[in-house]
Amino acid sequence: MNKEHTQFPKVIIIGGGFGGIQLGKNLKDKEVDVLMVDKHNYHTFQPLLYQVATGGLEPDSIAFPLRKVFRTQKNLNFRVADVKEIQAENKKIITDIGEYEYDYLVIATGSETNFFGQDEIEHFSMPMKTVPEALNLRSLILQNFEEALIEKDPEKKQALMNFVIVGGGPTGVETAGALAELKTHVLIYDYPELDIHKMNIYLIEGSERILSPFSEEASAKAKEFLENMGVTVMENIRVNHYDGHLVTYNDTQTIHAKGVIWSAGVKGAMIPGLDKAEVVRGGRLKTTNYNLIEGYENIFAIGDIAYMETKDYPHGHPGVAQTAIQQGKQLGENLLRIINNEKPHPFEYYDKGSMATVGRNKAVVDLSFWKFQGFFAWLTWMFVHLLFLVGFRNKAVTLINWIVNYFSYDRGSRVIIRKFDRDRMTEEAKPV
Amino acid sequence: MNKEHTQFPKVIIIGGGFGGIQLGKNLKDKEVDVLMVDKHNYHTFQPLLYQVATGGLEPDSIAFPLRKVFRTQKNLNFRVADVKEIQAENKKIITDIGEYEYDYLVIATGSETNFFGQDEIEHFSMPMKTVPEALNLRSLILQNFEEALIEKDPEKKQALMNFVIVGGGPTGVETAGALAELKTHVLIYDYPELDIHKMNIYLIEGSERILSPFSEEASAKAKEFLENMGVTVMENIRVNHYDGHLVTYNDTQTIHAKGVIWSAGVKGAMIPGLDKAEVVRGGRLKTTNYNLIEGYENIFAIGDIAYMETKDYPHGHPGVAQTAIQQGKQLGENLLRIINNEKPHPFEYYDKGSMATVGRNKAVVDLSFWKFQGFFAWLTWMFVHLLFLVGFRNKAVTLINWIVNYFSYDRGSRVIIRKFDRDRMTEEAKPV
Repeated sequence: MNKEHTQFPKVIIIGGGFGGIQLGKNLKDKEVDVLMVDKHNYHTFQPLLYQVATGGLEPDSIAFPLRKVFRTQKNLNFRVADVKEIQAENKKIITDIGEYEYDYLVIATGSETNFFGQDEIEHFSMPMKTVPEALNLRSLILQNFEEALIEKDPEKKQALMNFVIVGGGPTGVETAGALAELKTHVLIYDYPELDIHKMNIYLIEGSERILSPFSEEASAKAKEFLENMGVTVMENIRVNHYDGHLVTYNDTQTIHAKGVIWSAGVKGAMIPGLDKAEVVRGGRLKTTNYNLIEGYENIFAIGDIAYMETKDYPHGHPGVAQTAIQQGKQLGENLLRIINNEKPHPFEYYDKGSMATVGRNKAVVDLSFWKFQGFFAWLTWMFVHLLFLVGFRNKAVTLINWIVNYFSYDRGSRVIIRKFDRDRMTEEAKPV
Repeated sequence: MNKEHTQFPKVIIIGGGFGGIQLGKNLKDKEVDVLMVDKHNYHTFQPLLYQVATGGLEPDSIAFPLRKVFRTQKNLNFRVADVKEIQAENKKIITDIGEYEYDYLVIATGSETNFFGQDEIEHFSMPMKTVPEALNLRSLILQNFEEALIEKDPEKKQALMNFVIVGGGPTGVETAGALAELKTHVLIYDYPELDIHKMNIYLIEGSERILSPFSEEASAKAKEFLENMGVTVMENIRVNHYDGHLVTYNDTQTIHAKGVIWSAGVKGAMIPGLDKAEVVRGGRLKTTNYNLIEGYENIFAIGDIAYMETKDYPHGHPGVAQTAIQQGKQLGENLLRIINNEKPHPFEYYDKGSMATVGRNKAVVDLSFWKFQGFFAWLTWMFVHLLFLVGFRNKAVTLINWIVNYFSYDRGSRVIIRKFDRDRMTEEAKPV
């Protein structure tokens, strides 16, 4: 049962996301001694966070214990640790539980919410990149309705029933759709004392169209789906301010809202110490075509935090699970080549397509050879997400939830397990 | 869709536990105007809290939205509210969201953890009466093992792997058994770097035998089960102190432990203002045989907080779900009788038996006509708990979890969603 401690080269992987897990698995039974560290003891299946936030899934369904992933892998140890600093010159990382030495270091920390330096927005709006953040958002949505119920002032009541989602990428689109379904299928029955038709959902996108990395066909269809569901889709609009009450956009226009969800951008989850690295737009670390961070000889980056220019992707690869998984797999092979003084192979991204779901029977799928929307796209979306969800239990519980939700039109997890404390917004809303 | 507001008598029910829900349901379509208030927006299925704490179930499976329970009930409104005071003379309750008037008031607040005035124990030990408390305990158990892994001092390492459960009622017994299974089936694989055989589980009971309200046969068998599973069962022993490090018992003896679970007693969850009521041992309100609080004419108590002496139960009824359910049902009928100037019927408790589970294939069941233990008892326990769990989704998800856990010997929810902060122990550990 004991993990091996050997004289093999030491590889440290920071982060147990899609990339880190794939890399770790690909080093199984190889002549390396692997240490994975992560702030959490679980892997987060980020694509379904919005369903936790809107009461469709329980948190444990999209969290998978990292120790279980590597249970049978003798050459990998795991630590729950917060990495404070990388000391490249000493080949070690400094964490809240001690220092660890490495021969090869892999940064697979992923990305975090980017507020683009707007502190007030960061303070008052709700990010959704971690399980606790999704649970905070779930609590806030439900608390707003409980408050609306007892609020006498019509303007304040309306503000509690207005939700503004900033950022029309897949997360924003999926959250807007899920909120619209919550309104139509659940809240209308849960709050008969409220005129639930007054609930407004705004989806604000800064660029020309929502789902901008998708095909124009997909964007248009997603917009049509959302509008039919009652979501106000606003494109080409910049949000300037949010003070906890008033969202200001296009400099002068405003929406009163007590619920603002920020999904407008991400940046690499940086760790201090990589002074020689080139940090490009979005806080990503520039790497060679085999994921080596430029400026270093033994420090690599994969997934959301890596920025690699290739012929087909001159501005970097998309910040999605597939990039991380494919880079993790490739780096696993390349690390062994480097250790054996062989030449690493350049990374090439295989685009498996993009998809986003809007609601029941409604999704958009872009494949290189085929773009389709609607019911079959929705089935495809569900199938792919179940496939990539880690663990049999999580797959089974998620499937059961989806079946029950589908036939009952319900969202059974609309429970406020821990109240979200508006007064402590910054503290609570930040990733933990 | 609108709830009715009528001139019918106003009934306020404080608490959406087993008793409150049953009473609410029994008032459906009757000529009363019901308001239910609860601190949470969900009903907690307390008998399974220990499985949430030990990673076997997700929190949402044992929490059911109260609004959903009463969705189709036009004469019942629900509010998330914390009742601060009862003003009997003005026939109203004062809550954190405002005042509400009643003609009839029902206290169905249940019970809370009783530390018997031992502040230090209250500060450092873990109660398990609410979902957040169960999640705190889950986090603490897992954090202790993560810490043990990096702890160099052998004594401190051992303390992190020692768990003391104080109180050998069903909760204590079930938690001890679940911890023992966590040790044998999960932690041994999750922490290969630790000598998991050094993990100790102590179950300390003050009276002569664990499960003291059960038959002697059941107590003996439960003890045998637990001891075979490696739990140290200590009966006839009083815990005197716990300072966060050292458990002192029988005045002079000690156990070093960083995890102490307090399941040694409960007391009625009292609300200020009932000055004329007689509060008996365990903080319960003395009632007539039709649940009227003695000293009042229109204030009732049901379930854990009610104390009623009857011929068959001269010292009150057991503090279990069945008492609350049966009293809720009966009070529903009696309230209508009282409103119609009819004589209320006295309550009679029908003992459906007691049961507790210790581990896989191991449970004890006491029925009036039959006492049995082992595999069939365990099946019975599961069947009854699934039956009483509220909601189809919760039943389905729980069943899936139990099946997966049974065949995989796993506990898939061993995730630390929110870290438990030892330094803020009191604040976090208290019911929210």
